[in-house]
Amino acid sequence: MPILPEPLQNLIDAFESLPGIGPKSASRLAFYLLKAPNYLSDNLAIALAELKKHTGSCKVCCNITLAKQEVCDICASSQRDDGVVCVVEEPLDVLALERTGGFNGRYHVLHGVLSPIEGIGPEDLKIRELFERLKAHPAIKEVILATNPSMEGDATALYLQRQLGVLPVRVTRLARGLPVGSDLEYADTNTLLRALAGRQELD
Amino acid sequence: MPILPEPLQNLIDAFESLPGIGPKSASRLAFYLLKAPNYLSDNLAIALAELKKHTGSCKVCCNITLAKQEVCDICASSQRDDGVVCVVEEPLDVLALERTGGFNGRYHVLHGVLSPIEGIGPEDLKIRELFERLKAHPAIKEVILATNPSMEGDATALYLQRQLGVLPVRVTRLARGLPVGSDLEYADTNTLLRALAGRQELD
Repeated sequence: MPILPEPLQNLIDAFESLPGIGPKSASRLAFYLLKAPNYLSDNLAIALAELKKHTGSCKVCCNITLAKQEVCDICASSQRDDGVVCVVEEPLDVLALERTGGFNGRYHVLHGVLSPIEGIGPEDLKIRELFERLKAHPAIKEVILATNPSMEGDATALYLQRQLGVLPVRVTRLARGLPVGSDLEYADTNTLLRALAGRQELD
Repeated sequence: MPILPEPLQNLIDAFESLPGIGPKSASRLAFYLLKAPNYLSDNLAIALAELKKHTGSCKVCCNITLAKQEVCDICASSQRDDGVVCVVEEPLDVLALERTGGFNGRYHVLHGVLSPIEGIGPEDLKIRELFERLKAHPAIKEVILATNPSMEGDATALYLQRQLGVLPVRVTRLARGLPVGSDLEYADTNTLLRALAGRQELD
């Protein structure tokens, strides 16, 4: 006989199917919601139901946007520099860069990285959209490749760099080096090598 | 201007309101569901909606049960010993004990522990229900206090032990000692003291 009532087991299973939530966390969450005020589980259920119904993809930068908007707020803004496009892997990367307040250009979201092992090729990313955008907007003078400093991120940047060679745009990427507030003693060899190779003149 | 579309931010907020899920995990989960096949978020939304609608409390042991059942499967079973009731804090404790296969009596779920700091007194737990049950069923000869071996669990057990003194039942609690497979060298002092005090004759 099943020990847990079916509705509870279903919720535990649903939580467990999410990344980073194991069996223990899943049952803790389910039991928590069982005891918690109704609005907590209601809010989550409503948010889940509305997520895909009310979100869409920006026609320009491929970032997530409201379904009723064709173009996201950043692409629609007249305050931002049309000359620079920063290419990132995921929408969360746009958030991270926006939080810095240090970038006033436009974005392009690839929605992933090249990964031959997982069978993800150029056609699975928003690369075609990037090239169409660059061809249609000659005002774009610079493309910043801001993929993650990982194996896949670097491979994707290298691929894009080669492909972009045919277009009259400057291609740059984010600097590698020691993270601010870190300790040279604990830096890994690769980071230290990059920091050495990319050393800069003091003004 | 809001950087994330509202439906996405709502889902992140809903996840963040759950215990053990911080801002980073919440946005990871939301973005994962945005990309994942629809059935994943649908399953979770349905399970959430059905949770409270279709679960109830067992009239006998206060464990969680299907709403359409008055009495849970364990209480309804004729295969189990009516003479012993094991008192636990939470439904998950019933699961843990059932998994051992070593207990064939009945359960009583308190749904919490006494905690003066959090303002949880005896009237907030299913203690009245336990006493009514014991008075109504003289067949119950033994009550095993299986609260957690924590400060609150021990205080709750002590409280119950005193209250149960007026009834003609044997009151026992789970043994304290070295966990199986552990190392004496690494046992904490309290556990070791309990193991010494509770030492048993070798047969």
